[in-house]
Amino acid sequence: MIANRHETVPDRVRALLWRDGGLGLLDQRLLPQRLEYLWLSHPAEVADAIRRMVVRGAPAIGITAAYGVVLAARAAYARSGERWREELGTDLDALRAARPTAVNLAWALRRMEARCGRQSGDPEPVLLAEAQAIHAEDIAANRRMGELGAAFLGAGSRAMTHCNAGSLATGGFGTALGVIRSAWAGRALTKVYAAETRPWLQGARLTAWELREDGVPATLLADGAAADLMRRGLIDWVIVGADRIAANGDVANKIGTYGLALAARAHGVRFMVAAPVSTIDLETPDGGAIPIEERPAEELLALGGQRVAPEGIDVWNPVFDITPAALIDVLVTERGVLEAPGRLGIAALCQAA
Amino acid sequence: MIANRHETVPDRVRALLWRDGGLGLLDQRLLPQRLEYLWLSHPAEVADAIRRMVVRGAPAIGITAAYGVVLAARAAYARSGERWREELGTDLDALRAARPTAVNLAWALRRMEARCGRQSGDPEPVLLAEAQAIHAEDIAANRRMGELGAAFLGAGSRAMTHCNAGSLATGGFGTALGVIRSAWAGRALTKVYAAETRPWLQGARLTAWELREDGVPATLLADGAAADLMRRGLIDWVIVGADRIAANGDVANKIGTYGLALAARAHGVRFMVAAPVSTIDLETPDGGAIPIEERPAEELLALGGQRVAPEGIDVWNPVFDITPAALIDVLVTERGVLEAPGRLGIAALCQAA
Repeated sequence: MIANRHETVPDRVRALLWRDGGLGLLDQRLLPQRLEYLWLSHPAEVADAIRRMVVRGAPAIGITAAYGVVLAARAAYARSGERWREELGTDLDALRAARPTAVNLAWALRRMEARCGRQSGDPEPVLLAEAQAIHAEDIAANRRMGELGAAFLGAGSRAMTHCNAGSLATGGFGTALGVIRSAWAGRALTKVYAAETRPWLQGARLTAWELREDGVPATLLADGAAADLMRRGLIDWVIVGADRIAANGDVANKIGTYGLALAARAHGVRFMVAAPVSTIDLETPDGGAIPIEERPAEELLALGGQRVAPEGIDVWNPVFDITPAALIDVLVTERGVLEAPGRLGIAALCQAA
Repeated sequence: MIANRHETVPDRVRALLWRDGGLGLLDQRLLPQRLEYLWLSHPAEVADAIRRMVVRGAPAIGITAAYGVVLAARAAYARSGERWREELGTDLDALRAARPTAVNLAWALRRMEARCGRQSGDPEPVLLAEAQAIHAEDIAANRRMGELGAAFLGAGSRAMTHCNAGSLATGGFGTALGVIRSAWAGRALTKVYAAETRPWLQGARLTAWELREDGVPATLLADGAAADLMRRGLIDWVIVGADRIAANGDVANKIGTYGLALAARAHGVRFMVAAPVSTIDLETPDGGAIPIEERPAEELLALGGQRVAPEGIDVWNPVFDITPAALIDVLVTERGVLEAPGRLGIAALCQAA
């Protein structure tokens, strides 16, 4: 499986595809048991697929929404001809409201909207080109982050990741997994641990699967075992993605990330966040201002259709938590790296072009 | 459900019962969906039930093993008459080896063995009396720990617990849940959070169920959400049990406990361990000397019969972790309480009678 590390990269399964005028989303709820694409041609289906987590991961959600705008504009143009722009609002609102925490969603929609005002005639070619540009730029950003992040990992490094910030969470390649892939290809990394990441098990279902596909030696563990892994001195880095980064460098990421950051600091394990600049929201001053999605109790009450908790029990199910900037050693973006990220560095990154 | 807090106590479902000359174990693997006792009359079945986690929880394992010795002695006496003692070794070894971390198992076996040398004739009545004494003393110890621990909780306290250290983990009432029950009955406690505790989900399946049965307001959360719960200021105490306490006060408890202790310390949340003196092992100098059981990969690879991770992925599945004494604010035993437990205090507790 490990035979050729590089050749596996271009063939990686993609979370989303545009083909024959429709959007294909790999249904991530079915992995790793079934590999099935859901083909969508209506914008309302796209919002629904984001909400129901057919696709997840902040960058992938943004790209999916961009293609959703293409479908929305096509439908509006078919209905109303040159007055299509006036019809777009409802679909854009639905896409924008599909999930609240990942700021890449609003970012991609703003970028698509900026393309809506200019051309006359059928808007689809211009909007599709913009969505495909967002998609391609995301992959290029992932590759760049991979290089920049991997440069921090010394020979023989062992890393842990949480949730899935891989090919499946992005346009392709991955943010945290992009760094891990690059470090593996560069022979710096010797071992990766993946926390299973309850309740959706993205670590077990998606990250373990991606790493195995690439032949990276990966070990799965329960979320609760991570602190002990660090105490035993078995890892050097925690590497995660982000769903939103506030102006001061605080990071919203999958629930459990904050506990990992606390444990990492207590053990001298370094903590890296890899995310594209589109994940940074300068209008969010700090982590306290990031809206945190809470999802249905059912995600904790049942597993594989079997009930695992008693009837009538209350559930608290936040999807993300906030890791304060002070616990982050390295923030990797496609525009550069910040060590000990803070307000000034973040602002400088966002101004750089 | 909350109508009468006290009356629910005597009717609480027991993890184990002795009836009509047989040992009944509530099959905890089936909870909360089915409430079924497994009735055992052969000692090998008892060792097997401990190994397969029909019964779990350090004190409950010890009591179960004590009843296992009764069954072993009965079988040996039936086979060999007055030479029964010589036949006992194999069964005792199997019981002792059933699970490695909980020291209450070895403790209960030593106590039963000490009763094997004295009487002539049928050994069953004397041994059964000793097993029942161990069982009754455990319940009394739980009640005492409940009182002692609850005294630390000020009015309006909110607590979190991990795994299950309740009635189901003990002879009855519980260690950590004993403290929580007493504090609730005394109206100090207003709210309990239960971490679901992967991979066996003892928090979701057992603790949430026990708390709901008692009408204690309980909220279930993913293990990874605990640090965020503390950051939000929603709890004052983490209260857990223990599987073994070393001579220096280091505590082995369910995987995930150590991460909770680190997070608690970072947030000024107090950390309490409640365990009977039989959990203390003076021959284990510190946490590094406690043997940590690792269980099969399958516990992380499948859920409810469904595969949740890809084939061929490596798994690390330690059952317990070590929380250093320095992170423990209060150690509650039936013989007294230690604040900031350490070697001297532990030794003094063990000498007290």
